[in-house]
Formats: sequence, C-alpha cells, structure tokens
Amino acid sequence: MSAMDVERKNAGGRAEAWGDITPDAARRLVSAAVHAFAERGYHATTTRDIAGRAGMSPAALYIHYKTKEELLYQISKVGHRLALDILEEARDGEGAPAERLATAVRGFVRWHAEHHMTARVVQYELGALGEEHHAEVIAMRRATDAAVRSIIEDGVGAGAFDVPDVRGTTVAVLSLCIDVARWFNARGRSTPDEVGDLYAGLVLRMVGADS
Amino acid sequence: MSAMDVERKNAGGRAEAWGDITPDAARRLVSAAVHAFAERGYHATTTRDIAGRAGMSPAALYIHYKTKEELLYQISKVGHRLALDILEEARDGEGAPAERLATAVRGFVRWHAEHHMTARVVQYELGALGEEHHAEVIAMRRATDAAVRSIIEDGVGAGAFDVPDVRGTTVAVLSLCIDVARWFNARGRSTPDEVGDLYAGLVLRMVGADS
Repeated sequence: MSAMDVERKNAGGRAEAWGDITPDAARRLVSAAVHAFAERGYHATTTRDIAGRAGMSPAALYIHYKTKEELLYQISKVGHRLALDILEEARDGEGAPAERLATAVRGFVRWHAEHHMTARVVQYELGALGEEHHAEVIAMRRATDAAVRSIIEDGVGAGAFDVPDVRGTTVAVLSLCIDVARWFNARGRSTPDEVGDLYAGLVLRMVGADS
Repeated sequence: MSAMDVERKNAGGRAEAWGDITPDAARRLVSAAVHAFAERGYHATTTRDIAGRAGMSPAALYIHYKTKEELLYQISKVGHRLALDILEEARDGEGAPAERLATAVRGFVRWHAEHHMTARVVQYELGALGEEHHAEVIAMRRATDAAVRSIIEDGVGAGAFDVPDVRGTTVAVLSLCIDVARWFNARGRSTPDEVGDLYAGLVLRMVGADS
C-alpha cells in the first residue's frame, strides 16, 4: 500500500491529467475512482466507495456521474486522448522519422510512467466499458496505432528504417511503452525521463534506424 | 465475453499449465479461479463464485484451499515457475548468446500468448498476495530477471552484443514479452509462434546483436 501512498502524493503534485474536468467535484470523483479501481479493481468498487474517497455523499456523486461505468468511461476517454495527443503531435512534428519516433516514444513512456495508476485502469479495465463507450475507445486506440505506424512507414519510405513487418513492429513499440505502467515504481531506480531516453534508443534499434 | 469463451475452449484443449496439480478437483478449482479472476478481478470474486464455476460446493472447495488467497498463490506460483523454467532452460542451453536469447524470447512470448488469461492474473493481481507469498513470488521474479540478464551479459562479454544499459535493457526485453498477455487475441491475425519469431528478431536488434 505504501507505493500507492507515494503515487497518491505524486498525483496530487501533478494532477494535470484531470485538469480539464470541471467542476472541481467531478475532478475529485475521477481521481478517487482511479485510486479505487487501481487498488481493488473496477468490479469490486462501488460508487459509495468512490464518493467516500472523494469526501462526498453517494447522492452528490450521482449529480455528476449516473453510474460507475460513466466514471470509467471518463477516465478511459481522457487517458486515451492525452496519450493520443502525444503521439499525433510527434507524428506531425518537424524532423526526420527517427527524430519523430524518438519523440513519440519518449513522450508516450513518460506518460505511462508518471500516470501509471491511471494507465493501468485505462489498459486493464477496458472490458468493463459499455458497448458504445467501448467502441469509441477502440477507435481512439486505432488512431494511436495509426500515429506510430505512420512514422514507421515514413522512415521505411525514406529508406531510413529497415522494418520487415510494419504492423507487428508497431504493436511491439506501443506494447513496450504501455507496459511501463505495469512495472514502473516512483521509488525505483529510474525516472520517467531516463526510461523514456532508454526506450527511444531501443525502439530506434527495433526499426533498424541507420545511426 | 466471446473472446473469453474462445480462450476457455483453448484452455480446455491445452490445460497442461495445471497438469501437475492433483487431485483433479484442485486442478479444476485453479482453472475456475483463473477465469473468475480474469473476468471480474480478484477482489470482486468470492470462493463461492469459484466453487460454482468448478461445479463444486463451497465446502468442497475448502477441503483443497482454505482461502481465496491460497488459490491466487497457487496460480501465481505455478505460472511463475513455468515461465522461469523456460528462461533458465534457454540460459543453460547450448549455442551462442544470440541463439539462446532468441530461444528465451520465443518460449517466453509463446507462454504469455497461449496462457494469456493466466498470465494476466499472475501479472496484475500480484498486489493481492499475502506478505509471505508475495515475497516468495518476488524471489521468482528476480530469478526470471537474472536468467535473461545472464544471457545478455554473456553476449556482451563475448563481444556479440552492444548493450549500454544491461539492467534497463533486461527489464525492457521481459516487459515486451509479458505485455503480449495483455493484447494477444486467440482470434487475431498472429499465432503465438509468429509473435515469438517476430519478437526474437526485435530483441536481437535491441541488444545490438551482430547479424
């Protein structure tokens, strides 16, 4: 539990992930839901647990979110949007494909390290979303995949990368970065930036970038 | 849910992961627990749910496992042992470091793809283990890490690999393989062997193996 306490403190210091959610009560509920889902899982958490963590009554929660699933959807949507923004910005940036791929990996890794509790909920509770919400999130995941694939294709097209299987390598690059959320420990040896730098180098090797 | 039905069928076809657990009733309970934990999470599952899935009474479950945590521990221990065996066998095998690393990655990926439901429970519910069981499993995870690191160090020592950060690269290699359990879909485009082959090649690039 002490690792979670550390992250709770960190999340307090940089809660910018939820900065766009208003009013303040809704933002507090989302943050409480992330912690509850990460600790006990979506299905073991009640809206009463979430309201309690946010220091609110179940009735006050209901004003903002009608169901527990609505909270999960909000978390999933914001989480995917932020991660997607990082990748699309890198894709559309200036610079050679190798530079853009390194920027994408650094940013994506940093996001999964800094927000590893949110990222775990986003990644592992996907199956609990309602049908419509699930479809919407899957579309965002396809866009995430497409952003990275597009950079790799640019590199192959320019003769700068050597990638026999673009589709499979795209999955591998994203997967390597996403799994940072599982093992990253805020008290561990490496900072999010250090992991990001290491992984950018490893990914350039994976795509056979001429160095 | 239909993806889980598919895996349930697959698991029936190759339930060898639990083949060493006797008697048959205990093995059936472990298999039922994996499915229940994977679908709803550890904390949302009751021993009554597990007994029901195994077609047994709660009292019959109690003969084999005194608590839900004992079941999770059994799953975690067997899962880690099987994955560790694959890596240690590769480490101790004949052949150059590149060949042994490729064998390790192929086997480890295949395990996480074929047993992705078990692997998810093993990886994501680690925090629910009791203190003593947690310590035991962490020791097995250290051994897993050490097996891969040892192959990479052999390659660096032989001048066949170029790895500036052996510790970080070891984490990345294991992480890439483990995350297969999250995204692998038995109905998807690639077989476990195909993913294993692709990943063996990507990992040899990550360690800068001279090809």
